[in-house]
Amino acid sequence: MGKIICAGLGPGDPDLMSVRADRAIRGARQIAYFRKKGREGQARRIVAHMLRPDVAEHAMEYPVTTEIPFDSPEYNRLLSAFYDDWTARLAALAEAGDIVVLCEGDPLFYGSFMHLHARLQGLAVVEIIPGIPGMTGCWNVVGQPMTWGDDAMCVLMGTLPEGDLTRHIRASDAVVVMKTGRNLPKIARAIAAAGRMSDAWLVERGTMPNQRIMPLAQADLAACPYFATVLVHGNGRRPLADAAE
Amino acid sequence: MGKIICAGLGPGDPDLMSVRADRAIRGARQIAYFRKKGREGQARRIVAHMLRPDVAEHAMEYPVTTEIPFDSPEYNRLLSAFYDDWTARLAALAEAGDIVVLCEGDPLFYGSFMHLHARLQGLAVVEIIPGIPGMTGCWNVVGQPMTWGDDAMCVLMGTLPEGDLTRHIRASDAVVVMKTGRNLPKIARAIAAAGRMSDAWLVERGTMPNQRIMPLAQADLAACPYFATVLVHGNGRRPLADAAE
Ligand SMILES: C[S@@+](CC[C@H](N)C(=O)[O-])C[C@H]1O[C@@H](n2cnc3c(N)ncnc32)[C@H](O)[C@@H]1O
Ligand SMILES: C[S@@+](CC[C@H](N)C(=O)[O-])C[C@H]1O[C@@H](n2cnc3c(N)ncnc32)[C@H](O)[C@@H]1O
Repeated sequence: MGKIICAGLGPGDPDLMSVRADRAIRGARQIAYFRKKGREGQARRIVAHMLRPDVAEHAMEYPVTTEIPFDSPEYNRLLSAFYDDWTARLAALAEAGDIVVLCEGDPLFYGSFMHLHARLQGLAVVEIIPGIPGMTGCWNVVGQPMTWGDDAMCVLMGTLPEGDLTRHIRASDAVVVMKTGRNLPKIARAIAAAGRMSDAWLVERGTMPNQRIMPLAQADLAACPYFATVLVHGNGRRPLADAAE
Repeated sequence: MGKIICAGLGPGDPDLMSVRADRAIRGARQIAYFRKKGREGQARRIVAHMLRPDVAEHAMEYPVTTEIPFDSPEYNRLLSAFYDDWTARLAALAEAGDIVVLCEGDPLFYGSFMHLHARLQGLAVVEIIPGIPGMTGCWNVVGQPMTWGDDAMCVLMGTLPEGDLTRHIRASDAVVVMKTGRNLPKIARAIAAAGRMSDAWLVERGTMPNQRIMPLAQADLAACPYFATVLVHGNGRRPLADAAE
């Protein structure tokens, strides 16, 4: 009886994976990963050079979503059935030995794996390997301290209503906004309303080969990929008093 | 002419270091790390088994702080002189070859290294290797999803005034509070005032050999180490609609 090992891949550069995830992936005889139908999948691409030639691969393809609005009850039912189905299949596959499920960034931080994790309770042994969150990769490629001193940081999803975004950004010193894509114009309005536009960066595919970094004020708001993060750096309240604690 | 490489160590378990940090530390001929006078230092302990036998070590010991209040101007002057001094020494050491500076968690996330980083601009080539932040290690040892759906997360320092803590916690779905130690009673009051005490965890030395995990409501508030983090998990607003984007 094997385990289901969910390996956090970090932000994208395979060198930024943890030693434990690297070892699990290189040794894996079975892997599984989410992807959109017809795509290679970001997670699969990150580990392409690390896999055993005889690895068995399981692509967990999200149900086709073009005709059904993704916030409708019907879409929710489809997605729920998809997670139920893969829960049963992963549990069955684990009976033959360990299976490694790939997950971008850190699995427990806004990751899709948690929908399987909740369902797998009691059906299989699950082990999670933490990863560097995507946002941490992004602020490292910008190369400025993200937070210091007493800075308060908030992490927001671009799917939130504009008023909520503005309110959180106003209340914080440092800001991370994920799930950008089509939400970028709304995010940019909220950042401008909070008076932080001149401090904001957009990082597309941070640490990946085709990464792009630019001030948000200069970005084409209509053409933002899904793997992009908006960052506003903190300014380090009371940096000296704080540092030696 | 060598580089100054600041290696993020992750939360504490050496297996959670990135592949790149692991390689840099195992190959290092010179290392430097912060510590309190008379202590081994957390960072040094994490890498103890990884160092070359002939490595040259430089302990950057914080100026003694027992007599001077750490928020006084005099303390700030002492600390500033300490950072100036080590800036010059690291830049000189780098002339002989690469030197690896150890940093817990991720260096650009509330790390002491940024005080050197700012001063080293123009004096030496600096490379930063990201790490898994301490908080990410902490929510992984609790083993529940930290955030999902549209959850808004805030990261706070326990050094903030109680009113600020309460206000931020009230406004967020998920909460991280670092720099606990003597601030824990104040943090616990703020969490209780925001109505989240029954959801809060305290993780001491997460992923380290002597780690402790407990509900905050059961913790001894008067005896909290510096390497401890308070976590309140989000509850995943709109989890299904969100997951397949
Ligand atoms: C469903 S969340 C998954 C987060 C992941 N579990 C993590 O720890 O980063 C996907 C969002 O993460 C952000 N993201 C993850 N990796 C990124 C990267 N390398 N560059 C830019 N954004 C990234 C993007 O905002 C994207 O929309
Ligand atoms: C000066 S901050 C440095 C943060 C570090 N750069 C990071 O990315 O985690 C120190 C604080 O980080 C938190 N911390 C770091 N590692 C931790 C761990 N393994 N367990 C619990 N708390 C940790 C504690 O709250 C501690 O007071």
